[in-house]
Amino acid sequence: MADWVVGAHAVRALLAAAPQEVRRVLVAEGRRVPEVAELVADARAAGVRVETAPPAALRRRARSLGVGGGTAVAAERQAFTPAGERTFEARWPTFQQPLLVVLDGVEDPRNLGACLRTAEAAGAHAVLVPRRGSATFSGVVAKAASGALEHLFVVEVANLSRRLQWLREQGVWLVGGVDAGGGKHTDVDYRGPLAVVVGGEHRGLRRLTRERCDHLVSIGMAGEVASLNVSVALGVLLFEARRQRETAAPSV
Amino acid sequence: MADWVVGAHAVRALLAAAPQEVRRVLVAEGRRVPEVAELVADARAAGVRVETAPPAALRRRARSLGVGGGTAVAAERQAFTPAGERTFEARWPTFQQPLLVVLDGVEDPRNLGACLRTAEAAGAHAVLVPRRGSATFSGVVAKAASGALEHLFVVEVANLSRRLQWLREQGVWLVGGVDAGGGKHTDVDYRGPLAVVVGGEHRGLRRLTRERCDHLVSIGMAGEVASLNVSVALGVLLFEARRQRETAAPSV
Repeated sequence: MADWVVGAHAVRALLAAAPQEVRRVLVAEGRRVPEVAELVADARAAGVRVETAPPAALRRRARSLGVGGGTAVAAERQAFTPAGERTFEARWPTFQQPLLVVLDGVEDPRNLGACLRTAEAAGAHAVLVPRRGSATFSGVVAKAASGALEHLFVVEVANLSRRLQWLREQGVWLVGGVDAGGGKHTDVDYRGPLAVVVGGEHRGLRRLTRERCDHLVSIGMAGEVASLNVSVALGVLLFEARRQRETAAPSV
Repeated sequence: MADWVVGAHAVRALLAAAPQEVRRVLVAEGRRVPEVAELVADARAAGVRVETAPPAALRRRARSLGVGGGTAVAAERQAFTPAGERTFEARWPTFQQPLLVVLDGVEDPRNLGACLRTAEAAGAHAVLVPRRGSATFSGVVAKAASGALEHLFVVEVANLSRRLQWLREQGVWLVGGVDAGGGKHTDVDYRGPLAVVVGGEHRGLRRLTRERCDHLVSIGMAGEVASLNVSVALGVLLFEARRQRETAAPSV
């Protein structure tokens, strides 16, 4: 579902023009030709991750893009480049009554896009996404985000647990959404500096993330299905926060 | 994105075994062979819509399913069969403090599935879907619904405007979600018999549907993006309704 660039020529051009957009470079196993070795060196110099893959996997990738012939190298490209943590820290003092969203490993690109659209619509100042374990910012994400990416401050975080700790130190209240076992989501006070944290589709919040939260909440389910789609759960939490923020002055 | 059955033999078998699951039969233009004429007669006798399509479109469909050769006929099949309106009227008196969801033309199967999952989680007694202009109940819908289809009472409605009028006559309060121009969604009283009505991804509520609603509401947006994903908007409205229903006795 990500965007791929296939072939040595195209990958070299991408690495030269926009290395920050390259998520990783895939090299066919056993293809130790000089051209590929040079590309691998370029990628590493640009700080891009290099992985090997079976030649058949690369051929399939090429075919799905309509590129014929054998292919020794491909690059996964993101359509959008999130900001870094230094930029986030620099902007932090400008946020009035901060409202943040943390997406702890949303892997499906359509879900990630819908989460970003929801966060933007709810007026989040920033969305924090861990570097590993999330969907790549591909065209599929951008499409599902429905224009939100252009207006949203998305930050890629190297160590999510450490960044959550930093937020706590700034006085941010971390509310994590869990499928079951949390407090009632409407019983929490969302009016102070706030980060709403939701997890991936399959495993939810990771243990370290969960432990960092001040409060775990669950949306009260009336049916038989155990959970909501992650973007729907995020919307319910964020708009409850907005309702509270609009009906009373901030408590902090 | 729907489920397709391709080839005269397979379509004939499906029409014989489960005609209620067949959404429509596609026949290649200009293929007036007796075998196809017979199938068309079978389909019409079962009340199934028959359409013609260019032979190339049918060939593409067949190829995408891994079926080779020329193909004169295909059938679109739904993985799930909604209930009819008689069943709905029969069950109506059993609903306590009715909570209904009306999906006025949700065309994307993943969105439809996410809406159904959300409706089920919020405890909706029934979901009403117009016969025309909605996504087919394919495997994609069932997957996105994440098990909700097995527990949900989904009703296919022939004339939505008429059915909404019927609901009004039963004392149901119809609240329609619109992207802009409606009242604040948190200002409405959702505690009586209620139907939450949301529209398709592109055009929103149709004019006749809009006119039937007692109240049009918009979710207050704080960002630049003009709308939420339809399943997210539905979740925000339904869980605001549940919050109100849980914090005070029904007003009716």
